[in-house]
Amino acid sequence: MPNKKRSIKAKTGKPPGTLLYVGNKEITDSQITFLDYNSEVFEKRQIKSVEIFSEAVKNVRKDTVSWVNISGLHNINLLTEIGKLFDIHTLVLEDILNVFQRPKIEIYDDHIFAVIKHITKHDDNKLSIEQVSLIISEDFVITFQDGSSNIFESIYERIETGKNIFRKSKQDYLFYVLLDFIIDHYFLINEELTEEIDKLQEELFTNTDKNYTEEIHKLKKAVNKVRLSVKPSRDIISNILREDIKMINPSTHVYFKDTLDHTIQISESLDLTRESVISLLDTYLSTVSNRMNEVMKMLTLIATIFIPLTFIAGIYGMNFKYMPELEWEFGYPLIWIIMLSIGILLGLYFKKKKWL
Amino acid sequence: MPNKKRSIKAKTGKPPGTLLYVGNKEITDSQITFLDYNSEVFEKRQIKSVEIFSEAVKNVRKDTVSWVNISGLHNINLLTEIGKLFDIHTLVLEDILNVFQRPKIEIYDDHIFAVIKHITKHDDNKLSIEQVSLIISEDFVITFQDGSSNIFESIYERIETGKNIFRKSKQDYLFYVLLDFIIDHYFLINEELTEEIDKLQEELFTNTDKNYTEEIHKLKKAVNKVRLSVKPSRDIISNILREDIKMINPSTHVYFKDTLDHTIQISESLDLTRESVISLLDTYLSTVSNRMNEVMKMLTLIATIFIPLTFIAGIYGMNFKYMPELEWEFGYPLIWIIMLSIGILLGLYFKKKKWL
Amino acid sequence: MPNKKRSIKAKTGKPPGTLLYVGNKEITDSQITFLDYNSEVFEKRQIKSVEIFSEAVKNVRKDTVSWVNISGLHNINLLTEIGKLFDIHTLVLEDILNVFQRPKIEIYDDHIFAVIKHITKHDDNKLSIEQVSLIISEDFVITFQDGSSNIFESIYERIETGKNIFRKSKQDYLFYVLLDFIIDHYFLINEELTEEIDKLQEELFTNTDKNYTEEIHKLKKAVNKVRLSVKPSRDIISNILREDIKMINPSTHVYFKDTLDHTIQISESLDLTRESVISLLDTYLSTVSNRMNEVMKMLTLIATIFIPLTFIAGIYGMNFKYMPELEWEFGYPLIWIIMLSIGILLGLYFKKKKWL
Amino acid sequence: MPNKKRSIKAKTGKPPGTLLYVGNKEITDSQITFLDYNSEVFEKRQIKSVEIFSEAVKNVRKDTVSWVNISGLHNINLLTEIGKLFDIHTLVLEDILNVFQRPKIEIYDDHIFAVIKHITKHDDNKLSIEQVSLIISEDFVITFQDGSSNIFESIYERIETGKNIFRKSKQDYLFYVLLDFIIDHYFLINEELTEEIDKLQEELFTNTDKNYTEEIHKLKKAVNKVRLSVKPSRDIISNILREDIKMINPSTHVYFKDTLDHTIQISESLDLTRESVISLLDTYLSTVSNRMNEVMKMLTLIATIFIPLTFIAGIYGMNFKYMPELEWEFGYPLIWIIMLSIGILLGLYFKKKKWL
Amino acid sequence: MPNKKRSIKAKTGKPPGTLLYVGNKEITDSQITFLDYNSEVFEKRQIKSVEIFSEAVKNVRKDTVSWVNISGLHNINLLTEIGKLFDIHTLVLEDILNVFQRPKIEIYDDHIFAVIKHITKHDDNKLSIEQVSLIISEDFVITFQDGSSNIFESIYERIETGKNIFRKSKQDYLFYVLLDFIIDHYFLINEELTEEIDKLQEELFTNTDKNYTEEIHKLKKAVNKVRLSVKPSRDIISNILREDIKMINPSTHVYFKDTLDHTIQISESLDLTRESVISLLDTYLSTVSNRMNEVMKMLTLIATIFIPLTFIAGIYGMNFKYMPELEWEFGYPLIWIIMLSIGILLGLYFKKKKWL
Repeated sequence: MPNKKRSIKAKTGKPPGTLLYVGNKEITDSQITFLDYNSEVFEKRQIKSVEIFSEAVKNVRKDTVSWVNISGLHNINLLTEIGKLFDIHTLVLEDILNVFQRPKIEIYDDHIFAVIKHITKHDDNKLSIEQVSLIISEDFVITFQDGSSNIFESIYERIETGKNIFRKSKQDYLFYVLLDFIIDHYFLINEELTEEIDKLQEELFTNTDKNYTEEIHKLKKAVNKVRLSVKPSRDIISNILREDIKMINPSTHVYFKDTLDHTIQISESLDLTRESVISLLDTYLSTVSNRMNEVMKMLTLIATIFIPLTFIAGIYGMNFKYMPELEWEFGYPLIWIIMLSIGILLGLYFKKKKWL
Repeated sequence: MPNKKRSIKAKTGKPPGTLLYVGNKEITDSQITFLDYNSEVFEKRQIKSVEIFSEAVKNVRKDTVSWVNISGLHNINLLTEIGKLFDIHTLVLEDILNVFQRPKIEIYDDHIFAVIKHITKHDDNKLSIEQVSLIISEDFVITFQDGSSNIFESIYERIETGKNIFRKSKQDYLFYVLLDFIIDHYFLINEELTEEIDKLQEELFTNTDKNYTEEIHKLKKAVNKVRLSVKPSRDIISNILREDIKMINPSTHVYFKDTLDHTIQISESLDLTRESVISLLDTYLSTVSNRMNEVMKMLTLIATIFIPLTFIAGIYGMNFKYMPELEWEFGYPLIWIIMLSIGILLGLYFKKKKWL
Repeated sequence: MPNKKRSIKAKTGKPPGTLLYVGNKEITDSQITFLDYNSEVFEKRQIKSVEIFSEAVKNVRKDTVSWVNISGLHNINLLTEIGKLFDIHTLVLEDILNVFQRPKIEIYDDHIFAVIKHITKHDDNKLSIEQVSLIISEDFVITFQDGSSNIFESIYERIETGKNIFRKSKQDYLFYVLLDFIIDHYFLINEELTEEIDKLQEELFTNTDKNYTEEIHKLKKAVNKVRLSVKPSRDIISNILREDIKMINPSTHVYFKDTLDHTIQISESLDLTRESVISLLDTYLSTVSNRMNEVMKMLTLIATIFIPLTFIAGIYGMNFKYMPELEWEFGYPLIWIIMLSIGILLGLYFKKKKWL
Repeated sequence: MPNKKRSIKAKTGKPPGTLLYVGNKEITDSQITFLDYNSEVFEKRQIKSVEIFSEAVKNVRKDTVSWVNISGLHNINLLTEIGKLFDIHTLVLEDILNVFQRPKIEIYDDHIFAVIKHITKHDDNKLSIEQVSLIISEDFVITFQDGSSNIFESIYERIETGKNIFRKSKQDYLFYVLLDFIIDHYFLINEELTEEIDKLQEELFTNTDKNYTEEIHKLKKAVNKVRLSVKPSRDIISNILREDIKMINPSTHVYFKDTLDHTIQISESLDLTRESVISLLDTYLSTVSNRMNEVMKMLTLIATIFIPLTFIAGIYGMNFKYMPELEWEFGYPLIWIIMLSIGILLGLYFKKKKWL
Repeated sequence: MPNKKRSIKAKTGKPPGTLLYVGNKEITDSQITFLDYNSEVFEKRQIKSVEIFSEAVKNVRKDTVSWVNISGLHNINLLTEIGKLFDIHTLVLEDILNVFQRPKIEIYDDHIFAVIKHITKHDDNKLSIEQVSLIISEDFVITFQDGSSNIFESIYERIETGKNIFRKSKQDYLFYVLLDFIIDHYFLINEELTEEIDKLQEELFTNTDKNYTEEIHKLKKAVNKVRLSVKPSRDIISNILREDIKMINPSTHVYFKDTLDHTIQISESLDLTRESVISLLDTYLSTVSNRMNEVMKMLTLIATIFIPLTFIAGIYGMNFKYMPELEWEFGYPLIWIIMLSIGILLGLYFKKKKWL
C-alpha cells in the first residue's frame, strides 16, 4: 500500500465530494475494457479515448449484458467523465478513488454499488490488496480496479468460450461470478499464509540463532490485514440475499447462497490461521527458553562439580609452613581419590535429580 | 486430509458448477448401497453399475423408505448420473464433491440438503474427518460419504433387526438417526482428546527431557479442528427445528430436540477440552521453569559457598616473601576453621532465606 | 464421576431410546419416597416394591400435592415401570438415566421436565455433582436423583412442619422450593472454592518448596466444572418466567423471579472466582520468579566480588622467577588493601545500582 | 464485608421468606428519618419508636412528598413492622436484609423496588460497599441503608434549602436525585482507584525490593468488586426508561436519561481502570525482569573476563620442574601484557555486542 | 486533561442542573463567532458582548443558515445567557460544560444535541481531546468548543469560498460537514499512533539499554483513550440515520451513510492499532529475553570451558611433596596438550549442540 499516509493526510480537511486519488500514482495509464455479450453475440473492445467510449456506450444493444472494466484509477478526468456518462453520485466516485475504503455494499433502487478487496501474493512474498469497485445497474456492469494488471482476464475468456449458463444469464450472474472469483482467491491467500506458518515452524527447530519474534509478528499483521479485508465480504453477500433487489433475479439466489457459505468458511479458516500464528509464537518462545535451560543445566553441571574440586586444589596450593598432609607419601594419590569421589557423587546426585 | 492444498488451488478460477473431486483420489472404487424397507419388507442391495441402479430407482415401491448410500466420491461420472437421476442442482453436487465444505443445511421445498462431518480416530492416533452429505427428499434418502469404509454398517443392521419405531417411521426418522449417529461419535472423539491430554499431563512430570510444546500445540490444533467441524452441527439441528419443513413430521421434533441438546453439550465440552489443553501448556511451562529454578538454586548454593573459600585458599597460595600467617604454627588449622565457619554461616543464611 | 468414559462409549451407537444407566453402579438400591400433602393432611411413605407404589399412585387424592422422589437410578426395571405408570416419553427416561446430561428445561402442554445439578462437597474436598431430574405434571411432582443420599430430607421436614405458604400452595411452589434449594447450594460451593483459593494463596508465601501449578489448575478445572453445571440454571428459570405455563400459577412468578436473581448473582460470582484462580496462578508464578531473582542476585553479588579478587591472588601465586612485588616488604599488606578496596568499591557500586 | 461467609451458610436451606439479617451485627441501633415536604412545607423528624412512626405515617399529608429513611438493618422487628405498615412482600423484605443482593430493579403496578450499592472509601483505604434499597410508591419513598452513617445528610439539606425544582417535584424526582447521588459517587471511587494505580506505578520504579504482585492483585480484585456493584446500575436506569411506569412522570425522563449516560460512562471508565491494573502488573513484572537482566549482565561481564585470566594465572602457579617461561626475565611483565590484552579484547567484544 | 480530578470531586454531591465548568480555567476568554449564509449572502462576525450577540440573534434572516460557534466554556454567565436566548435545557448546558462527557446524541422534536470529541496532536506529542457540543435547531446551528483555538477556521473558509452544495444546503449539511470534519481527524490521529508504534519498533532493536515497557504502556493507554472517544461516534451517526428526524433532509442521508462507513473503518483500524501495541510489547519483551539468552550463552561457554581447565592448573599448583608428574621432563607441555584437547572437545560439543 504505497503512499497511504500521505494521501490520507492530503484528504483530511478537504470538502466532501472532492475527487482525489489516494493510491499508487506511478501506474502509467488507465485502461477501459468493454464487453458486450448474450447467448448469440460476444464483443470485446479495448478503448483508449473517452470519446470513443461514450460513443460505444450510447450505441449499446439493449438485449446484451454490457460490462465495462476500468483498470487504473489515477486518471481523474476519465473518472469524472464516466461519472457523468453513467450518472454516478460524487460520493460513490469518491469511494471508488479512495482505495483504502472498507469493503461494503450499497443497494439503491436502480443500481448496486459494492467495494471489495482482491488479494494476491507477489513473487516477493508480499501481499497486494487491490480494491475493486462494482456498479450493477440494469443496463451495465461497471468495475473499477486499482492497478494495471488485468485481473479479470480469465473471466473474459470464460465468457467468450462459455456456452450455457453464463451467456444466457443477465448482469446478476456476472455480478455473482465476479464476487465468487474474488472470494475464491481468499482461500488461496489463506493457504499461502498457512504454508508460510508451517515453513516457519519447521525452521524454528533447525535454525536456532535467529530471532523469529519480529517475523512472526509480521505474519500476524498480514493475517490481521487479510481478515480485515475479507470479513466484511460476508455482510456484502448476506445483504444481497436479505434485501429484495430488482437487479438480482431470485433464481440467482442459490449461487449467492453458495458464495455466502464460502465467506463464512474463509472467515473461520482465517480465525484458525490467526490462532496458528499465535501458537507459533508460543512454540518459538518456549523453544528458545528450553534451549536456554539446557545451556544453563550444562553450566550448572560443570560449575557445581569443578568449583568444590578447584577449592580443594587451592587448599593444597597454600604455602603454609606446617601442612602435614603435604608431607604424606600418599597425600597426592589420596587427594585424587577424594576429588574423584566428590565428582562422582555429585554426578550421581544430579542423575537422581534428573538434572543430567 | 490429503491433497487439500493442490485441490483448492486447482479449483480456484474454475467456473462455478465445475464438478471436481478435491479429496483423496487413491480410493479404489465407489460403492452404492441400496436399502428399501417398511414395517413389513426389508431389502438391501450392493449395486455396482449405474444402469442397474437407475433401474432399481425406477422400480422402487412408494410405501417404503428408500435409502441410497454412495461411498467414495472420486467417480465423477457416477455422481453426474446420480445427479441427473434425482434432479440435483449442480451447486449441490459441487458441495458434495468439495469435501472441505463447511457443515451446513439447506432447506428447500421438496428436499433438504445437509453436509456434516463424521470424525473417527485411527489406530495411529490421527483424527480422520470424513464429510457426509445427506439429501432428504419425499421419496429418497441419499447419503454421500467420502472414503470407502462403510460407516453406516451398524445402522443397516439396526434397520434390519429393528422392529417398532424404526421400521414404522418415515424418512425423517432415518434422517434423525443418521445425524444422531454422527453427533454421538463427537462425544467419543472429545473423550479421546481428553484422555490424550490426561496422558500427556502425567508424562510431563515423569519424562523431563522432552520438549512438549510442539506436541501440546498439535493437540490444540486437533481440538480446534474438531470444534470447527462440530460447532456448526448445532445450527443444523436448530434450523431443522425452527423451520416448518414438510419432510419432517412434527412428531419427530422431540427426537431432534434431543439431538440439539447433544450438540450444545458437545460444544461446551469441547470448549472445556480446549481450556484443558491451554492449562496443560501452562502447567508444562511452569514445570520446566520450576525445574530450572531448582537447578539454579543448586548452582548458586555451591558457587556462593565455594567461591569465597577458594579466594581465601588463593590468598595463602601467593608467593610473597613476607606473609607472617604462613609462618604461624597453627596457621593451617586456623585457616581451616575460618573456612569451615564461613561455609556453615553461608549455609545457615541460605537456610534462613529458605533458598535451600 | 466414576465410570464416565466407559459408559459414554457403551452408549455410542446404541439406537436412541435405549435405556442405559451411565452412572455409578455400585450404589446398592433405589428408594422411592412418596409424599402427599395439603394444608390439612401430610403423609410420607418409604416404598420398596413397584407394585405397592403403583397401587399408591392410583389411590392418590386429587386435592393434595403428590411428590414422588426416586433416589438411585441403576434399577432400570423400576424406571421403566415408573415410565409406564406416568406415561413418560422414552427420550425423557433416557435423559434421566444419562447423568451427564446438560441442565435444561423442556416445557410441554401437560408437564415440565427439568434437569439440574445438585453440587455438594465431600469431606475429602472433592466436589460431587449429582444430577436431579424433575417432572412437574398437574397431579404429580416426580424427582429423580442419582445417588443414594437423600438430599431432600430437609425439605420433607419443612413440608411436615411448615404451615402457611407451603402447605397451602400447589405443585408450582414445591417446584420453586426444589430449584431454590439446589441453587442456594451453589452459593455454598462458590464460597468453599473461594476459601480454598484464599487458603492456597496464604500457603504460597509460606511453603516455598512445593510446585503449586498443578494444584491451582485442578482448582481452575473444578471452578470450570461448577460453572458449566450452574450457568444453564439461569436459562431454566428465565424459561419458566418467559413462557406462559399452565402448571405455574402467575402468583408464584415473584418467587421464580427471586430465584432468577440468584442464578444471575451466582453466575457473576463464579466468574469472579474464576478470575481469582487465574490471579492466584499469576501470583504464584511471580512469587517463584521473585524468589529466583533474589537467589540470583546473591550469586551475582558473591561471584562478581570474589572472582576478581581470586584472580589477583592467582597472579601472586604464579611462580615466575622475577616478580618484583613479591620481594617488597609491604607487598602482602598492600595487596590486602588493594583487594579490600576493590571489594568495597564493588559493594558500593551494587548498593548504588540498588542490586543489594 | 464482615460475616459474609457465616451468614450465607446460615441462610442456605432456610425456607424462602425467612427474614435474616446477614450484615454486620455490631452496629448499635436502627434510625428512622422522616421527611415531609412540598413547595411550601418542610418537616424533618428523627423517630425512635415504631409506634410514633406508624402514627406519623397515618397522619401524613397527601399533597407532600414523604420520604422515610431507615439506617441500620439488624433490627428485624422494626423491619417486620415497617413491612406490615407499608404492605411490603416478604421476598422484598428478604432482599432488603440480604445485603449481598445484586443491584436490581423490580417494577410493579403500584411501586418500584430497587437495590443499589453505595460505595465509599474509608480513611484506611478500604472500600466499603453499602447496600441501599429503595421503595417508591405513590405516597412514599422508603429507603433502607445498611450501616449507621447517614449518607443522605447532604440531600436532606438540599431539600431544606432547595427552592425551585426539588420542592415542586414529586417522588420521581427524589428517586432520581437519590440514584444520581449514588452513581455520582462511583466516579469518585473510580478516581481513587486510578490514583492508587498511579501511585503504585511510581513506587514500582523507586522501591525495588518489594514484591508488588500481591498488592496489584488486591487492587485488581477491588476494581472487579466495584465493577460488579456498578455495572447493573445501567440496567436499572434503562429499565426505568424503557417501561411505562405510572410513578415516573414523563417529564422526569430527561433526568434519568442523563443518569443513564453517567452509568454508561462509569462502566467504560471502570473497564479502562481494569486494563490499567493489568498493565500495571505487566509493567511491574517486566521491570523486575529488566533489573534481573542488568544484574545478570554484570555477572557475565565480570565472570567471562576474569575466568580466563584466572586460568592463565593458575597455569603459571603450577609447580612443574621444567617450565621455561618461568625462567624468562620478562615472563612476568609479558604475562601481564597478555592478560590485559585478553581483558581489553573481551571488553571490546562485549561493547560491540552491546552487552555492556 | 487538566484539573480532571479536582473538578469531578467538586461536582459530586452538587444538585443536578448546577452549572459548573470542569475544564481548564486558564484559558483567557470566550469567543463568539457568528456566521450567516445562503447561496447569495455570506456574513461572518466576531462578537464579544452578549448584548450585541442577542441583538444579532433577533435580527437574523430566516432564509439563511445561521451558525454560532462559542469557543471557551469557562464564562458561565455567557453560557447561561445563551441558554436563555435559545431556550436550552439546564441538563444540556450541564453536559456542554462537563467536558468529560461521553460522546452521545440526543434527538428531540425541535432540535438535536450531540457531543463529540475533537482529537488533535500537539507538537510535544501529547494528544489533546477537546469536547465539541453541537445543537441543531431549525433556525440555528450552535457549536460549543472547549479551548480557545478555533478549530473550525478551515470550515469558515470553505463556506465563504464554497459555491454549489454547501451554500445551497441547509443546517443538516452543515451538521454533516462538522461531524465529517471531526471524524476525518481520527484517521490522522490513528496514523500518528501507528507511526509512533513503528518508530518505537525500530528503536527497540537499536537502543538496547532502555526499558521500553512504560513507554509502550503509555502508548497503549493513549490508544485506549482515543478508542473510547471515537467508538461512540458510530452510534451517533447510525442514530441520525435510524431515526426519522425532521431536521435532517432525506437527501442528506447519503452523506451521513458515508460518514457511518468512516466511523466503522476508524473503529476497526483502531482495533488493529491496539493489537499492534500489544504485539510491540511482545516483541520488546522477547527481544530483551533473547539478548539475555545470548549473554548467558557467552557466560556458559567461557565458564564451562575454563572452569575444568583452571581445576587442572590448580591440581599442579598443589605443594605435595610427592607428585611424580611435576618431575617429568615433558609434564608441562603434556598438561598444555591435555588442556587444549579438553578445551577443543568442549567447544566441539557446544558446536554440535548448536549452543555456539
